[in-house]
Amino acid sequence: MSTKTLAQVAQHKSADSCWVIIQNKVYDVTDFLPDHPGGAEIILKYAGRDATSVYEPIHPPDALEKNLPLSKHLGPLSADAVEAMEKQRESAKKTQDEIRVEQARKRMPPLIRILNLTDMENVARQILSHKAWAYYSSASDDGITNIENARAFNRFFFRARVMRPVSKCDPSTTILGFKSRIPVFVSGAALAKLGHPDGEINITKGASKGGIIQMVSSNASLSPNAIMDAADQYQTLFFQLYKHRNDEVAEKRVRDIERLGYKAIFLTVDAIVAGNRERDVRSPWILEEQENGPVYFDVLKGTEQAGEVNIFGTAGALIANDDRDMTWEKTIPWLRSMTKLPIVIKGVQCVEDAVLAAEACCDGILLSNHGGRQLEYSLPPLEVLYSLQQQRPDVFQRLEVYIDGGIRRGTDVVKAVCLGAKAVGLGRPFLYAQSAYGAAGVAKVIEILQREIVTAMRLLGASTVKDLRPEMIQRADWQPVLSKL
Amino acid sequence: MSTKTLAQVAQHKSADSCWVIIQNKVYDVTDFLPDHPGGAEIILKYAGRDATSVYEPIHPPDALEKNLPLSKHLGPLSADAVEAMEKQRESAKKTQDEIRVEQARKRMPPLIRILNLTDMENVARQILSHKAWAYYSSASDDGITNIENARAFNRFFFRARVMRPVSKCDPSTTILGFKSRIPVFVSGAALAKLGHPDGEINITKGASKGGIIQMVSSNASLSPNAIMDAADQYQTLFFQLYKHRNDEVAEKRVRDIERLGYKAIFLTVDAIVAGNRERDVRSPWILEEQENGPVYFDVLKGTEQAGEVNIFGTAGALIANDDRDMTWEKTIPWLRSMTKLPIVIKGVQCVEDAVLAAEACCDGILLSNHGGRQLEYSLPPLEVLYSLQQQRPDVFQRLEVYIDGGIRRGTDVVKAVCLGAKAVGLGRPFLYAQSAYGAAGVAKVIEILQREIVTAMRLLGASTVKDLRPEMIQRADWQPVLSKL
Amino acid sequence: MSTKTLAQVAQHKSADSCWVIIQNKVYDVTDFLPDHPGGAEIILKYAGRDATSVYEPIHPPDALEKNLPLSKHLGPLSADAVEAMEKQRESAKKTQDEIRVEQARKRMPPLIRILNLTDMENVARQILSHKAWAYYSSASDDGITNIENARAFNRFFFRARVMRPVSKCDPSTTILGFKSRIPVFVSGAALAKLGHPDGEINITKGASKGGIIQMVSSNASLSPNAIMDAADQYQTLFFQLYKHRNDEVAEKRVRDIERLGYKAIFLTVDAIVAGNRERDVRSPWILEEQENGPVYFDVLKGTEQAGEVNIFGTAGALIANDDRDMTWEKTIPWLRSMTKLPIVIKGVQCVEDAVLAAEACCDGILLSNHGGRQLEYSLPPLEVLYSLQQQRPDVFQRLEVYIDGGIRRGTDVVKAVCLGAKAVGLGRPFLYAQSAYGAAGVAKVIEILQREIVTAMRLLGASTVKDLRPEMIQRADWQPVLSKL
Amino acid sequence: MSTKTLAQVAQHKSADSCWVIIQNKVYDVTDFLPDHPGGAEIILKYAGRDATSVYEPIHPPDALEKNLPLSKHLGPLSADAVEAMEKQRESAKKTQDEIRVEQARKRMPPLIRILNLTDMENVARQILSHKAWAYYSSASDDGITNIENARAFNRFFFRARVMRPVSKCDPSTTILGFKSRIPVFVSGAALAKLGHPDGEINITKGASKGGIIQMVSSNASLSPNAIMDAADQYQTLFFQLYKHRNDEVAEKRVRDIERLGYKAIFLTVDAIVAGNRERDVRSPWILEEQENGPVYFDVLKGTEQAGEVNIFGTAGALIANDDRDMTWEKTIPWLRSMTKLPIVIKGVQCVEDAVLAAEACCDGILLSNHGGRQLEYSLPPLEVLYSLQQQRPDVFQRLEVYIDGGIRRGTDVVKAVCLGAKAVGLGRPFLYAQSAYGAAGVAKVIEILQREIVTAMRLLGASTVKDLRPEMIQRADWQPVLSKL
Repeated sequence: MSTKTLAQVAQHKSADSCWVIIQNKVYDVTDFLPDHPGGAEIILKYAGRDATSVYEPIHPPDALEKNLPLSKHLGPLSADAVEAMEKQRESAKKTQDEIRVEQARKRMPPLIRILNLTDMENVARQILSHKAWAYYSSASDDGITNIENARAFNRFFFRARVMRPVSKCDPSTTILGFKSRIPVFVSGAALAKLGHPDGEINITKGASKGGIIQMVSSNASLSPNAIMDAADQYQTLFFQLYKHRNDEVAEKRVRDIERLGYKAIFLTVDAIVAGNRERDVRSPWILEEQENGPVYFDVLKGTEQAGEVNIFGTAGALIANDDRDMTWEKTIPWLRSMTKLPIVIKGVQCVEDAVLAAEACCDGILLSNHGGRQLEYSLPPLEVLYSLQQQRPDVFQRLEVYIDGGIRRGTDVVKAVCLGAKAVGLGRPFLYAQSAYGAAGVAKVIEILQREIVTAMRLLGASTVKDLRPEMIQRADWQPVLSKL
Repeated sequence: MSTKTLAQVAQHKSADSCWVIIQNKVYDVTDFLPDHPGGAEIILKYAGRDATSVYEPIHPPDALEKNLPLSKHLGPLSADAVEAMEKQRESAKKTQDEIRVEQARKRMPPLIRILNLTDMENVARQILSHKAWAYYSSASDDGITNIENARAFNRFFFRARVMRPVSKCDPSTTILGFKSRIPVFVSGAALAKLGHPDGEINITKGASKGGIIQMVSSNASLSPNAIMDAADQYQTLFFQLYKHRNDEVAEKRVRDIERLGYKAIFLTVDAIVAGNRERDVRSPWILEEQENGPVYFDVLKGTEQAGEVNIFGTAGALIANDDRDMTWEKTIPWLRSMTKLPIVIKGVQCVEDAVLAAEACCDGILLSNHGGRQLEYSLPPLEVLYSLQQQRPDVFQRLEVYIDGGIRRGTDVVKAVCLGAKAVGLGRPFLYAQSAYGAAGVAKVIEILQREIVTAMRLLGASTVKDLRPEMIQRADWQPVLSKL
Repeated sequence: MSTKTLAQVAQHKSADSCWVIIQNKVYDVTDFLPDHPGGAEIILKYAGRDATSVYEPIHPPDALEKNLPLSKHLGPLSADAVEAMEKQRESAKKTQDEIRVEQARKRMPPLIRILNLTDMENVARQILSHKAWAYYSSASDDGITNIENARAFNRFFFRARVMRPVSKCDPSTTILGFKSRIPVFVSGAALAKLGHPDGEINITKGASKGGIIQMVSSNASLSPNAIMDAADQYQTLFFQLYKHRNDEVAEKRVRDIERLGYKAIFLTVDAIVAGNRERDVRSPWILEEQENGPVYFDVLKGTEQAGEVNIFGTAGALIANDDRDMTWEKTIPWLRSMTKLPIVIKGVQCVEDAVLAAEACCDGILLSNHGGRQLEYSLPPLEVLYSLQQQRPDVFQRLEVYIDGGIRRGTDVVKAVCLGAKAVGLGRPFLYAQSAYGAAGVAKVIEILQREIVTAMRLLGASTVKDLRPEMIQRADWQPVLSKL
Repeated sequence: MSTKTLAQVAQHKSADSCWVIIQNKVYDVTDFLPDHPGGAEIILKYAGRDATSVYEPIHPPDALEKNLPLSKHLGPLSADAVEAMEKQRESAKKTQDEIRVEQARKRMPPLIRILNLTDMENVARQILSHKAWAYYSSASDDGITNIENARAFNRFFFRARVMRPVSKCDPSTTILGFKSRIPVFVSGAALAKLGHPDGEINITKGASKGGIIQMVSSNASLSPNAIMDAADQYQTLFFQLYKHRNDEVAEKRVRDIERLGYKAIFLTVDAIVAGNRERDVRSPWILEEQENGPVYFDVLKGTEQAGEVNIFGTAGALIANDDRDMTWEKTIPWLRSMTKLPIVIKGVQCVEDAVLAAEACCDGILLSNHGGRQLEYSLPPLEVLYSLQQQRPDVFQRLEVYIDGGIRRGTDVVKAVCLGAKAVGLGRPFLYAQSAYGAAGVAKVIEILQREIVTAMRLLGASTVKDLRPEMIQRADWQPVLSKL
């Protein structure tokens, strides 16, 4: 393959012949345009030129290889072209958003002054690009489920016990038999590179330092083996599987994962279609307005273009090919047949399905509504956990139960464990931490949680997680305040 | 009849002899003054001159013909007079409100950027005249019922089911046997011309495009046949009947409606007298103050004129002659006797009356408190639906149940259908949409709802409306947040 | 008695010899100083000079005669002195508060634009002197009871009935056998002269026009016979009795009242000691700061003077001599023994005492916590009414039940009547109305309530008060919004 | 021992040799550095110089003697050195915070204008140093428990009784047999010298004047005998014991206390480890930023120094050596064996532990979550009291029950007594009062409470505390407003 010049590439800038440059390589994506999950429009915007900056943080790195036949890999850019592009990038005017981020990063407080997870989120809100913040923070519709997930913890109070020996207090536990220093794991959270160039590896290194388990998403911005490579020798990683609708593709993914050394499969069932995340959908418009001013009325234009808006946002593209027809009867046995790994169902949202999971002999369930990013008005996971404990305590004997969504304090973790959760997952806090402070930020989050958990356990009269019992919890029949000091 | 000059008309500007010009025709309304439902005062304000601009958007177009004997139709204006008036209108100074609206219309966002019904309402709030906004948005007393209608949906959460095949998802249904692409219809909403010169026809055309049924109000600003004329060949229209207190007048209306091709009668029973809509009542004062500054204290004057305020607002006039003595025993059989159309009672507000409607063999009931515009503190329709499902599930077998009031999201629709509603009505959103973007706006609202409904159904594990079941709903015992992201 | 000069009076300005001028007459109040319910300090502030302006609006007009022996009535001022004082008043610099009130009164809206009782209160807040507003609006402690009284109505929704004949709708009722055009009466509200020079007579005249009954307070700023004189021939007045601790004084008061033609005794039992009304207590300080700037720290001074603050406010003085040892066994028979008038207990605050009142053969009870001005956290009267209806419906057969506190809308009245109240009392709204617009304002309040009551009854399916039934009410298990449109 | 010069001391300013000056005496604290509960870092900041200003208000005065062998007491400063230091202090530039406090103290209102405990807190907020306010006001995590403690009172309403004789009303009671003028005591509150140079003695003198009992904290900034010395002859003092983990040290403390004349032991069990009081932890940073501007990002530095932050705040240091392994079986008999004083368990937080305390034959329990400063989401003490009254009324017969946390009004006290509390404790209000107005402020708080309690009792129909009964309380099923008038 001969090298290509920028001029050559620039000639192919239409739907008839569409070339793009990704990391100094040239690809012919003309035939792929109609199949692009994010729509053809966004690719055509970069037709005939470099698309690396938008491609990289939101695509799994093997996306192009998987989707494009080798004949469309047109080869590398010429050395001159690479140099020219580099100069172009340097001299390009920064956007207002880039300038804002640059300045905010200079004003970040030292890590030592981050006292809790809200502090961490507040820093992240300042230093993230608008696009990254929109993707990380967005939730469905009016964001009510996202808020209610957290508010649910607000309704559960402690019946603290005194006069119990707690000078020794051990918050460690096991998850599917694997050790964890605290009953907390990293819940699958995608696209870490949007916030930090090292991406998910920050989380891997921080989790290693903090002694907890990372669940890696199918939609990570790094490949499963790149992440596994970053793990230390004794570190446990789980895999969050978005099952492809093509069973063969899905099977290959599962076998790869097991071979790479991942220790469990969390099958995602709460995100088979994209949630309505409006902040994420609006993000490009807001950036556009920031640079060029508001876009005004033109009914006809609006109507004609209606098909072009990527109404499903960033996430919509990622899951466009996932299996929307999974069933207990078909999918669990299929998965069992090809892997010895424990199987956990991620996204159970009511007692009935928890029971079905137990009957399907799953190894665990993660009560989750995807952080309020999918079905608006899905019950808060903590409320589902509480109902399960009230109505079907037997389920906790048959599989391990985890929850995620809305956890921000050590007391939140302790409440969930009291109500029967083996461990809890956190997602956004780790994305925020790695965006702001890299791996050190992730380790800091774990350190904060560990300190808060131990303090809460001691003041509750518990010296191990086994001492945390449902009768220590009282559900308030009023709505407590949420406001800060 | 000879033509009239402006000078001739101008001589008749008192209660003793009162002429007005409507659409270039002259009428003698002297004898009609005491019978005007909106009060004599407002007519006298325009005595001796052109009243078209205030007459047109708030009167059913056959109002004058129906109420005025032919002898009082004094004939057309002279051509000179028409021309003079035209010039007058052109040179007239615009009011502050007109200027505001004109500028706002230029700043409207393109339709493609309207992501949800709140976006649509926000645009409408900007571009509507003060009078139109006051009429459309006003509600009874302190507006509590209006807000509670919407807040009720906030209390109902989903017990979402996973691992169910939903790649195919069909949100269509039937209403009284007529097809509807989604379980949504346009609830009777009057005076569309206040917001857009094409009035209710915008809704008819948008409903045709979106595949849903329009219920046309007796108080529409276009006649029932004008609206029917705008419908496409296969389109279904229902009619919202405000029964006249004179049975003969009422009968003529019913027979006209059936003859025109309307497919069902929604008999309105929640608006037999005007609600206390203070925003609407205050509207003329606020406009007056906007132009001339505040009106200060004068007790005597205030006291003397007390009888002149139109305390019942725009709506009060529209329903002044409606039947306030309807009964189950008398009115339903009377209506049955003259039409084969299905009969739906619009405005049932408690379980007891739902049962009575079933016993009276009605074909359906629309649980409604008139969008919070009538009895303040009437229960939210969703709460009535929930009680009906809890206490008398048999009623759903005997007639179709619909609700309206407070619906703004696809999840709202899905909740109502889960609880037994065959379909839900929306009013204000369609008025706002047609005001801002005409028929395209109406179609957009339907498109948004359809997308939101399908997303919610899939994430809930439902592939048809039959899969939406009461057990998928859990009523929260706390008050969730209402705030946006 | 010789006339007195200003110079003569001015010599008696100490606790040793203290003269004051009231309405151009001179009194020696030296011996009375220790007995003054409001404390000696406030009198000494005006020693040796004219005290009319502070005396008049807050004392029953017979206070001096009753409390001072004839020998201390030193006779009239000389004509020169009267003239001199008049000039002094004219040339006196107005306070900032007086200037504010004067300007606000000029900006009052015409009465015709007052649509509801909140409008009326908003006008009153503008035009009342700081002292009057503080006295009228103040409530106990943190004002929670006052707010909760009104908020209680917010929790009760209507189960509205449709298809009932309501073209004829009669809201009239009887109270203790006396006719009332609507189920509303004026609850005892004191010191009307603080807001308007005509005082309680404004209410009497307005009540006459509106066809409702006025309950006159023992603490009115006009005498019972002055008020009765202002009534029309057929008008019914009730009397709110604050029983004096001296039975003989109390007996004289009762016999006077009956003789004057009052038709019932409302014995006040919820105000035997003063509530902690801090806004009222603070009022003089705030006025002082307004004129002279803030008062700064001086611990010693503060400590020494602690005894001098009138911590019980305006009301404390009024009720200082009331009977704090009334009992069912002793007080009711005593009262029965001296009057044939019906006896109503004003201030019942729980079901148990409602039952005791019935057993004591009282003619009625007024469920009231004195408008939230006495015991903070006394239950809202509407909640007590609801409990009474639920637990002891028999009580409603044995005596008439009324409530007051928090009523601002016709729907509030209708809710109370549905739950068994024969009528409801309003206090502050009438004080506000008479302060702003005199008798016309009072009539306006009644007119507004009548319109709102009739509208609510019709939309509820009721044509007489007998149709208003407990089953038409549903108590919400959530907290509805309070915000306005 | 020879006297030391400033130059001599200044040479020992490192971890290798660390001298400090406290109240003009020199100490060698080198060996003590690793054992300092507050961490070595804070001492090293003052190595080689005077540390009195930071040492004094937060250390029990015998701290140095107890912890430092005599050989490390290096003797007094030379007279020249003392003089030099004095001059230095005088010429030292005041910090922004000191200047703010100085000015605020000049603007304090006279004590006579303090009407309630909120007024007192508002003054204290103005005049306290940032550090003092942070320590006094701080609470755990997000401060929810602290707020909920107070909000709980908001949910309990009175069923007031009328027609009961209350002209005589006596609010006095006994606590463990000792007289108290009102059912209120001073709950252990530490470090009074942070707010006022006279420290806890202000409280002792104010309590004497007001006739109530003071519970003195182990962590008082004055020694137990200094406080006892300040008490009047007949005054009752209790002691709040933080049991040292070394039983011998603890025993000595108990025997000292009994010998000094304290009348009861309140064994603290709700603060065995430090709560997460972030406002207190942040306090030094905020002061630093106030003087020098914000501290910006340096990840490496942040990470290295992580061990140096005193994450447990001021309180953490105070309780670092307390016993974390107390049990009912071991600790209560141990305590009984060495003292005849009544034993009260301070910090019971659920019904189960109340029962265990009764079974362990304790004399009383103080339901408390340490003012929301320890376990976040511990139930509000009033809710625990209510549950105890509902579920185990027998416990009130077996020991005395007290509560503290959130009490700010006389009605709060009366509610707790109705529900079975023998008395209630207040902490922060007394700290605020003594900080602002010394002993006179403390007496004022008691005077306010007494007035409010008597008013509430009378309006409730109670003339002694025995008349206050559980049936006078109704728990609201809604959330009342908290807002002020």
